[in-house]
Amino acid sequence: MVVNQALLGANHRLAEQNRGAFRALDMLALNVVSSPGSGKTALLQATLNGLRGRLRCGVIVGDLATDNDAMRLRGTGAPVVQIATGTMCHLEAGMVAQALKKLDVRALDLLLVENVGNLVCPASFDLGEALRVVLLSVTEGEDKPLKYPPIFVSADAVVVTKMDLEAAAGFDREAALRNIRQASPKAELFELSARTGSGIDAWCDYLVTARKKWLELS
Amino acid sequence: MVVNQALLGANHRLAEQNRGAFRALDMLALNVVSSPGSGKTALLQATLNGLRGRLRCGVIVGDLATDNDAMRLRGTGAPVVQIATGTMCHLEAGMVAQALKKLDVRALDLLLVENVGNLVCPASFDLGEALRVVLLSVTEGEDKPLKYPPIFVSADAVVVTKMDLEAAAGFDREAALRNIRQASPKAELFELSARTGSGIDAWCDYLVTARKKWLELS
Repeated sequence: MVVNQALLGANHRLAEQNRGAFRALDMLALNVVSSPGSGKTALLQATLNGLRGRLRCGVIVGDLATDNDAMRLRGTGAPVVQIATGTMCHLEAGMVAQALKKLDVRALDLLLVENVGNLVCPASFDLGEALRVVLLSVTEGEDKPLKYPPIFVSADAVVVTKMDLEAAAGFDREAALRNIRQASPKAELFELSARTGSGIDAWCDYLVTARKKWLELS
Repeated sequence: MVVNQALLGANHRLAEQNRGAFRALDMLALNVVSSPGSGKTALLQATLNGLRGRLRCGVIVGDLATDNDAMRLRGTGAPVVQIATGTMCHLEAGMVAQALKKLDVRALDLLLVENVGNLVCPASFDLGEALRVVLLSVTEGEDKPLKYPPIFVSADAVVVTKMDLEAAAGFDREAALRNIRQASPKAELFELSARTGSGIDAWCDYLVTARKKWLELS
């Protein structure tokens, strides 16, 4: 990636400030990353519905243009802040800090940050998140974890999405799981379909447990 | 995008040099761009097979890591040069110039450059190509042309891929075509499936005709 080192340094400082804020607020923050069209927004919709009554959730969503995703997510009733990045290919910690001001953060247990659709650049930009979640849809091909190593090696959770299309796409599940385990050795692995709902409960349970563990470590 | 302006300026100069070289060689150059997993390599395989005996083709393929795509493409018998970009999220003109040295360019009519899977950053980096080709697979969602405007506005051709999955993915074709026409006003539009072969002939005919027209303009 073509990145200015000074800018990366500034991002690291702001990411640590975000991390401190999230700790102070007992708010588990997720940085959700994937290719365009892997189903980030659909997963967040299902997550917001699945966690209703269990965790109070807020959303920050980044896109180059349009507020389509924010509109979809507001349908769940959750507070959503849109960041329009223009031509910028990733979110930065400072953008998240600005967006946080528009949320009632003391009333939130979980912050879902939907990054710009991009499997490369977001890898270099820590947002201060507690968990980095990387999505891989079954239609993208089994070799993506090996072809985009920086983002996959940094994943705390890898979510295989659109499992309802597994057969139609000719998805080689064994090969994909092998590649994910190789590229993302520290990641928890989930397989789900936001369309059918399969796997959503296990994913939501994971988030509830992850927040509990994270609070105990604080 | 976080790009160094001096670097962009250097890229523009090298892109013009590539353009001059392509003209001198009567070699039509395509810059093929899409999200990860939209089917760039599958399209190139089908294109290489479809153009056999009509145009002599060479390929330059960029990936962060692995030579999976180059291996797949060499199966067609075409000469293929792999560029490993490491953590870089796009190809640059200078990389293409270096890769060209490894091809017998005087024996080629068409150069297919498969960019890194990324719908954002490659938009800013002219490679000197005659045609920029942007792929959108039916599984990515109909709104992507509106959400990633810089790459779509620069497209000379937009190729909707994986049409065999149209029904399974619940693809809204009308909405997608409307969004493509809005985002990519100058682009030729193709719908195809590399898996079934549907639409590949029309696409290959387009490339043959595009090269003829381009030679006449030289």
